[in-house]
Amino acid sequence: MNEKIDDFYYMKEALKEAKKAKDKDEIPIGCVVVKNNIIIGRGHNLVESNNNPLRHAELIAIEDASKKIDNWRFNGCTLYVTLEPCAMCSGALVYSRMDRVVFGAYDYKRGYCGSIESLPTKTELNHKVEILGGVMEKECLLLIQDFFKKLRIRNKAN
Amino acid sequence: MNEKIDDFYYMKEALKEAKKAKDKDEIPIGCVVVKNNIIIGRGHNLVESNNNPLRHAELIAIEDASKKIDNWRFNGCTLYVTLEPCAMCSGALVYSRMDRVVFGAYDYKRGYCGSIESLPTKTELNHKVEILGGVMEKECLLLIQDFFKKLRIRNKAN
Repeated sequence: MNEKIDDFYYMKEALKEAKKAKDKDEIPIGCVVVKNNIIIGRGHNLVESNNNPLRHAELIAIEDASKKIDNWRFNGCTLYVTLEPCAMCSGALVYSRMDRVVFGAYDYKRGYCGSIESLPTKTELNHKVEILGGVMEKECLLLIQDFFKKLRIRNKAN
Repeated sequence: MNEKIDDFYYMKEALKEAKKAKDKDEIPIGCVVVKNNIIIGRGHNLVESNNNPLRHAELIAIEDASKKIDNWRFNGCTLYVTLEPCAMCSGALVYSRMDRVVFGAYDYKRGYCGSIESLPTKTELNHKVEILGGVMEKECLLLIQDFFKKLRIRNKAN
């Protein structure tokens, strides 16, 4: 792994965002965008609350950050997210020209940063994003597993 | 091709949106989302104007439509767009559970609805989107080619 000391600090911040999603009964996924050691964007999954399929944590954090930097180019930025990004969000990493993505848990069924395939490093696309997976994997995965466990119990009771 | 008569009508509406982008000096790409023969969402490329990498025509139209139907599931909907969707927007088609996507011009360098690969029909993902490309291809392509031609002339003059 090519971890940096700061990666743990920022992943903890992404986990704080994920817990906000959990408190709203959303799948607990959280994200922060960092530039020059400053968090410039935050987001957590809000698909159900907002009834909007685009409200993934990553897209919310990118939108938040783009307002802060007043720029659509994220050179020099790292995006931290608790779950491996899906195809849509992996595409967003490319189109926002993000430098680096660091994720916690792997998503073997939907992940496009290595699991199904690796979109941010695709040779055909004109921007490459450095990928690091598995940072604080256990904590990130546990949060999601716990959410689905409780959901199953609740659904059985109804 | 598996065209429907209505496809031309709605692609003309997407072209109207593309012309709005052109008038704002944006790459002229436009989009509409249709359900039960009603346009429920419209959008045109606003990446530069909004300084936001997520402001592709498709994402704006999906966001607009999700507010109208107050739902993140787009079953029964067709998205019309003048240019083949990129990886991010092709992912959005999957995650919005769109029924069908109809596009005009092919984007051989960035297109993820058949050109580089076909994300909306990927067997690994849990939703499939029917794809039809090349509807009013000439008109859609001409608009984009004309934009870049004028841009080159302008850049040479500066």
